[in-house]
Amino acid sequence: MDKLHTLYYFLDLAGTFVFAISGATAAKQRGLDLFGICVIAFIVACGGGIMRDLCIGAIPPAGLSNWRYLVVAMIATGMTLGLYPIVQKLNQPVLFFDALGLSLFAITGAQKSLAYGHNGEVAVLLGITTAVGGGVLRDILLNRIPVILEKEIYASAALLGALIVVLGNHLKWISSDWVSIFALIICFAIRLLALHYHWNLPVYSKNKPA
Amino acid sequence: MDKLHTLYYFLDLAGTFVFAISGATAAKQRGLDLFGICVIAFIVACGGGIMRDLCIGAIPPAGLSNWRYLVVAMIATGMTLGLYPIVQKLNQPVLFFDALGLSLFAITGAQKSLAYGHNGEVAVLLGITTAVGGGVLRDILLNRIPVILEKEIYASAALLGALIVVLGNHLKWISSDWVSIFALIICFAIRLLALHYHWNLPVYSKNKPA
Amino acid sequence: MDKLHTLYYFLDLAGTFVFAISGATAAKQRGLDLFGICVIAFIVACGGGIMRDLCIGAIPPAGLSNWRYLVVAMIATGMTLGLYPIVQKLNQPVLFFDALGLSLFAITGAQKSLAYGHNGEVAVLLGITTAVGGGVLRDILLNRIPVILEKEIYASAALLGALIVVLGNHLKWISSDWVSIFALIICFAIRLLALHYHWNLPVYSKNKPA
Repeated sequence: MDKLHTLYYFLDLAGTFVFAISGATAAKQRGLDLFGICVIAFIVACGGGIMRDLCIGAIPPAGLSNWRYLVVAMIATGMTLGLYPIVQKLNQPVLFFDALGLSLFAITGAQKSLAYGHNGEVAVLLGITTAVGGGVLRDILLNRIPVILEKEIYASAALLGALIVVLGNHLKWISSDWVSIFALIICFAIRLLALHYHWNLPVYSKNKPA
Repeated sequence: MDKLHTLYYFLDLAGTFVFAISGATAAKQRGLDLFGICVIAFIVACGGGIMRDLCIGAIPPAGLSNWRYLVVAMIATGMTLGLYPIVQKLNQPVLFFDALGLSLFAITGAQKSLAYGHNGEVAVLLGITTAVGGGVLRDILLNRIPVILEKEIYASAALLGALIVVLGNHLKWISSDWVSIFALIICFAIRLLALHYHWNLPVYSKNKPA
Repeated sequence: MDKLHTLYYFLDLAGTFVFAISGATAAKQRGLDLFGICVIAFIVACGGGIMRDLCIGAIPPAGLSNWRYLVVAMIATGMTLGLYPIVQKLNQPVLFFDALGLSLFAITGAQKSLAYGHNGEVAVLLGITTAVGGGVLRDILLNRIPVILEKEIYASAALLGALIVVLGNHLKWISSDWVSIFALIICFAIRLLALHYHWNLPVYSKNKPA
């Protein structure tokens, strides 16, 4: 992580925090025990980043070797369990925190891939992977079809965010930090609007399984 | 990929193409949206190769860094969606393209592992992984038991193809290219015959779950 | 694997053996064919170690390149199928061998991560991963919620075993071998006691899905 400066490091920990809340809430709603909740929270928070680090050759993955990720994920889990009555009153808290984590990780995932010297395609694909990887692992472990394959615009928001990062770094119109903040806002806004207005990408099938 | 010469590169792209058709068809039949279809098509086409590249130390994986894989997968997806009435008329098109991709990837997976200097066991196991990995990921994401664990001879055909590649390269009776073409034909023929005649490996259980 | 001396190598092969029995039994009970049983047995036996090796940079993973793992897993599978009437008479054989493999792999996973020069956090997290990774992959492939998320103390036993290894190696009160044997006994005893007395970690939810 020392190839990225402080802003991305902070965004990465923020993404870890909100994804862990999202993961802990989902695991608690599913009735898992304390350890199961911690495992799911950690996997949602760090799983996508670990996949990215394996693919860019950042060994060992930061999610495993940097204790801050584990501590942040466990604090978020503790807060979720301790303050559950409050968390529960938030309107669709899992979806909100999930959208924020999605945006943060799409941007930091793309930036880290570029920082390790890989090309724009790798940065876009691993930006998406960082953003959706943890959630996909959560859904696989909880034995349901991953939310990225469901209807609302989700991974496509991450794609747009990562694409803005790569194009912004390529064109160099504004500083890399402003590109990241701009990409973050666009990605988060699109995801929230898609959730609110139930925007969907076209579905091509008429013969869905019953 | 530059350690492999043009023949394997072509076979690898051909496998990507047919696996993407297979993936897009399965995702469309499942009623996923446009992005979900693209994701599943890409994962079926490149997932096995990415697993192989992580295991042989080819970082970043060719499926992520070489744009041709992404483009070929997206062209195959576009063709599948655009020409769906034709694709649908083919008899069991998913199974046919799946068998062709299985054979192509078993051979190129084994060849690439050998080209990176690994031993015959790694080449055979990663030949199978390349061949079945994408399909296994597809089935996990679509929340069903992977087809390789179902009855018809599937991964065992990939095992045979990869084994012929390793033995052929070891014994050096004929050139490596002819070994690959021979292995490809054997693997594809066995898979198609197994499909047609419903060849199965022995099942050891009498108390199947209801 | 040559960074570990003979004791860990033996323990690792022993874990491979018992996990393969556990995997083959589960796959046979599920009614899979011969190849499917071998695949599941191999994945349960070597899947966790392969994940660990990818994360610590041991390329290619020992489970793929060292033929002893494959041979041990296949012998265990053959014995399970050949002696199935005896295996079946054992009381909950899958759970017993699973507990032994869990303990062996938690200890060897942590030791190997330390031997590759990684820090204590990586060793603990990858000790758990080595121990539960194969079982999680088995459950994902058989399309059920992983047993580590079910109620009885499971991954927490692996956490304790790996933690004892890391602390023991750090404090150096006794030799590394005795630390491993002590950690192994504690981890195995806790898992067996948890099974026998149905010890559970606290469940935080009252609204379980029906």
